[in-house]
Amino acid sequence: MKLLTSRDNPQYRKLRQLASNSAASRKGEYAILDGIHLCQAYLGHVGIPVLCVASQTSQHHPEVSAIVQECKSGGAKCLLLTDSLYRPISQVENGVDIVFVISKPAVQTCPVLRQTAVLLDRIQDPGNLGSILRSAAAAGIARVFCSAGTASAWSPRVLRAGMGAHFLLEIVENVVLEDVMEASEIPVIATTPYTETTIYDCDLRLPVAWLLGHEGKGIRESLLDKASDRVVVPHQGAMESLNVAACAAVCFFEQVRQNRVCSGGNRPLPD
Amino acid sequence: MKLLTSRDNPQYRKLRQLASNSAASRKGEYAILDGIHLCQAYLGHVGIPVLCVASQTSQHHPEVSAIVQECKSGGAKCLLLTDSLYRPISQVENGVDIVFVISKPAVQTCPVLRQTAVLLDRIQDPGNLGSILRSAAAAGIARVFCSAGTASAWSPRVLRAGMGAHFLLEIVENVVLEDVMEASEIPVIATTPYTETTIYDCDLRLPVAWLLGHEGKGIRESLLDKASDRVVVPHQGAMESLNVAACAAVCFFEQVRQNRVCSGGNRPLPD
Repeated sequence: MKLLTSRDNPQYRKLRQLASNSAASRKGEYAILDGIHLCQAYLGHVGIPVLCVASQTSQHHPEVSAIVQECKSGGAKCLLLTDSLYRPISQVENGVDIVFVISKPAVQTCPVLRQTAVLLDRIQDPGNLGSILRSAAAAGIARVFCSAGTASAWSPRVLRAGMGAHFLLEIVENVVLEDVMEASEIPVIATTPYTETTIYDCDLRLPVAWLLGHEGKGIRESLLDKASDRVVVPHQGAMESLNVAACAAVCFFEQVRQNRVCSGGNRPLPD
Repeated sequence: MKLLTSRDNPQYRKLRQLASNSAASRKGEYAILDGIHLCQAYLGHVGIPVLCVASQTSQHHPEVSAIVQECKSGGAKCLLLTDSLYRPISQVENGVDIVFVISKPAVQTCPVLRQTAVLLDRIQDPGNLGSILRSAAAAGIARVFCSAGTASAWSPRVLRAGMGAHFLLEIVENVVLEDVMEASEIPVIATTPYTETTIYDCDLRLPVAWLLGHEGKGIRESLLDKASDRVVVPHQGAMESLNVAACAAVCFFEQVRQNRVCSGGNRPLPD
């Protein structure tokens, strides 16, 4: 495996730029996967990366050497960095040193909504976005649409919080949600604290599109006006609202629950 | 209002240390509340802080001046900082400059569990801990017990993510969870991906204690062994697990749902 030792190596400089999470790197065609778990998930669900990078210390770690071996067999380029060169590449503290460089999936055109999906209006926090993607994948949802102003889905922090959800979902970014909602063939359900209708009053046994909004400001009026229904997770009075990722999880799994009841999957509670 | 202009002022140095989130500040008797929302929540739910601090720029902001006024009327000490002195105090980007210094609630002795509560085993991420506290308060849960090794509940990041939940909950830190579980008069339900029993199979209409564990390692075996039940949020096979804060929200609100059904609060779905 080729060892890089110089900060001035052009390949190293590119790698460092990509890892910096700058606007330039966000718009590029590559993303960086940081840590054993994401790399294993990528190998399992997608395939061989463009580039596999380990540090001199980590190369003998059994899971790292298994990953590197699989990459080599699949024809991926592999690089070794000195520990001091590796450090600025990774944002994971106390992790095992391995990153993949991958091609982001090709930009999708927006399909007409017919299956359960998630519409995100300007979600700011990378941890929240990653958690929402992870919950969506865990609930069996296949597509997530992000408006302009939502955190970049393929940034290192969102990838880390997503824990591999990115490889199970189709994620469409910079979407004009108004257009998607107008063309939708399924109801769009907006979550907002300002309604009396709870998610438990809502029939979720058929596909719906879940619309979730900005952490502080919620969903834009222009989108709320186009939603089929407005629902709330019925929180106690003194707490104003739930975290948006917690709200998303409750909604997605209420739908899972209703569909399990429908298919006889839940044991009925005794009277 | 007194204006501080020197970095060497002893009061300023104390404030800066408190805001630095160091081990020393975590163990102290004071905590710092950063931003308008937390300060308003404190005034609304608890009362007057020890100290109220604004910046020269923010002092004319209408919400800040209302908060300062309320603090002064209540007898709190108020300080004004130059903008450059204020900056290192706050971790909020693009926020409005106001912080409170408050006394942390007195350390509780562990009461015997009789009402629904949350037991946290080594939750690492401040955002996750804050989100769990927020969901617990929103679900009407009154008490949260944190093991040693859980993030510090009164640190600025957890306070921020908690969005005021701290003032609605009784939070007990550095708890020996084994002891609490042994003395518990209600079932302790451990959440883990390694079981077939789903939360929907579980009767949650009476009080339970929810046990949630470390983001990567889950709940310690010594605690799992003492739990009355092990349950899972039934996620799809390809996604290994949910984020712990998402899992917590789904559990807490499944209990809310079952209790609403019980009290006739949910509209039954049509057949």
